Parts: sequence; C-alpha cells; structure tokens
Amino acid sequence: MSGWLEAVRWNAEGLVPVVAQEAAPPHRVLMLAWMNREALARTVATGRAVYWSRSRGRLWAKGERSGHVQRVREIRLDCDGDTLLLLVEQEGLACHTGRRSCFYRRLEGDAWAEAEPVARDPRAIYGEQDGEVSGDGG
Amino acid sequence: MSGWLEAVRWNAEGLVPVVAQEAAPPHRVLMLAWMNREALARTVATGRAVYWSRSRGRLWAKGERSGHVQRVREIRLDCDGDTLLLLVEQEGLACHTGRRSCFYRRLEGDAWAEAEPVARDPRAIYGEQDGEVSGDGG
Repeated sequence: MSGWLEAVRWNAEGLVPVVAQEAAPPHRVLMLAWMNREALARTVATGRAVYWSRSRGRLWAKGERSGHVQRVREIRLDCDGDTLLLLVEQEGLACHTGRRSCFYRRLEGDAWAEAEPVARDPRAIYGEQDGEVSGDGG
Repeated sequence: MSGWLEAVRWNAEGLVPVVAQEAAPPHRVLMLAWMNREALARTVATGRAVYWSRSRGRLWAKGERSGHVQRVREIRLDCDGDTLLLLVEQEGLACHTGRRSCFYRRLEGDAWAEAEPVARDPRAIYGEQDGEVSGDGG
C-alpha cells in the first residue's frame, strides 16, 4: 500500500468524504461523495473521479451511465487528513436531477427553495431507469 | 421542530457533513465540518457558522477562540438532503494551522505537498494552547 494512501485518515468503514469542486470559475461545489482506498487509487490512476457508493456497496465511476465524467485536475487533502477535495472539469452535469450542481436548494426563510433550474431532463440522460445517484453516491 | 430542519437527512448520529466555501471569488473551499440540528438552528439564528465537534462532543462556534468567524451568506442543501454547503465570508483564516483553507495539501506524484503557506503562526492566533481544531471539527 502506498504511503500517500495511508496518509489519509480513513474512517472506521475505510471511507472519507470527498468534495468535488469545479477547477475553473465559477468554482461551484458540485457534490459530496465518499471514497475508499481503491476508489482513490483508481481516481489517481485514471484521472477520472471514482467514488464508493455506500448504498450500493460498490465502486462507482462518476459518469459511468450518463457520460458525465469528472476529469480530475487536482486532489487536495485537509489538515486533519480526513477529507478530500477534488478540483475537476465536469463533463455535462454533476447532479442526477439534471442540474449542474447537487446543491441546488437554498434556505429562504424557513423553506428550502430551488435555486437552480433543471438544465436537462434526467430521463434524457438516463432513460426511464432510476438515474445515476449522485450526492452521497447512492 | 421546524420542517426545514427535518428536510435534512441527518445520519444515525444525528449529523450531516457541511462544506464551507467562500461566497466571493476565488470561492475557495475552506473546510468540511459537521452539524447536528442545534448547530444548524444556531447558525441560522445567529448568521454565523456553528458546528458540532465530534471529538469534543459539543457545539463549536467557529472562531470562538480565534475570532475567525464565518458570516453565513447562504445555506444550500444537496439533492439527497444529506450534505450542507455554507457560502461564507471568512474572517481571518479558516484553518487552525494558520492557513486560509484547510485543504492546503496537494497530491504531487506519490506525495502530499504543501500547496499553501502558513499565513499566520497559529501560536499568535491561539497562544500556546492547542489550536482551535478545524477540518473535521475536532
């Protein structure tokens, strides 16, 4: 196992949260997902984001169904070593709802309001099956 | 309990991860921490970020020792409802190491390299005691 992989403070489940942010302006935060050692190793090896889907219990190459891959420009580790930040070039849309970012709801008064429109009907991206799950990684 | 608080999908420990990002350019991602319901309610009520410190087991008002508070401009919720994004105006430095952002290490080849200098000696911020813990929130 490589030293740089072991410098990450994996949690009890062998995972860390990963923030994906656009490398270029406007530098939107696109999503938060999770990685295990293998996901991070594959991300580094391929230059494309691979996450660990907690609900599916398997590796999840972002864009594997939608084509909406994330080309990784830079990988950052935080001071505690327990969170990663990916600076990415997002192909298409990060969110399985057909929006650019998963953080499309904004707190306005005492309600969550939609702050970003659907850019593309998810059925046009995924067909009639369930969409690729983003956010938490499914 | 307010409906907007219950729209958040709190995990089994009653927590969600929270990404703090600069509201203004260059829109750095500053840190990742955790909130429980009370932390989020206090953040909304005060307009300043309050997190839940998992290691200390208590609420943690960001900047309570350093003065490096985060004024919250916007609160976003992701598609799955299990991650928050705060758009903030960071007073001083987000990181307890004396850096602007906690994500100051960059993967270069097979090593994590420091990609951002210390802006201020943490002892000048916190004295000789342990620094305020950021990142995971202590």
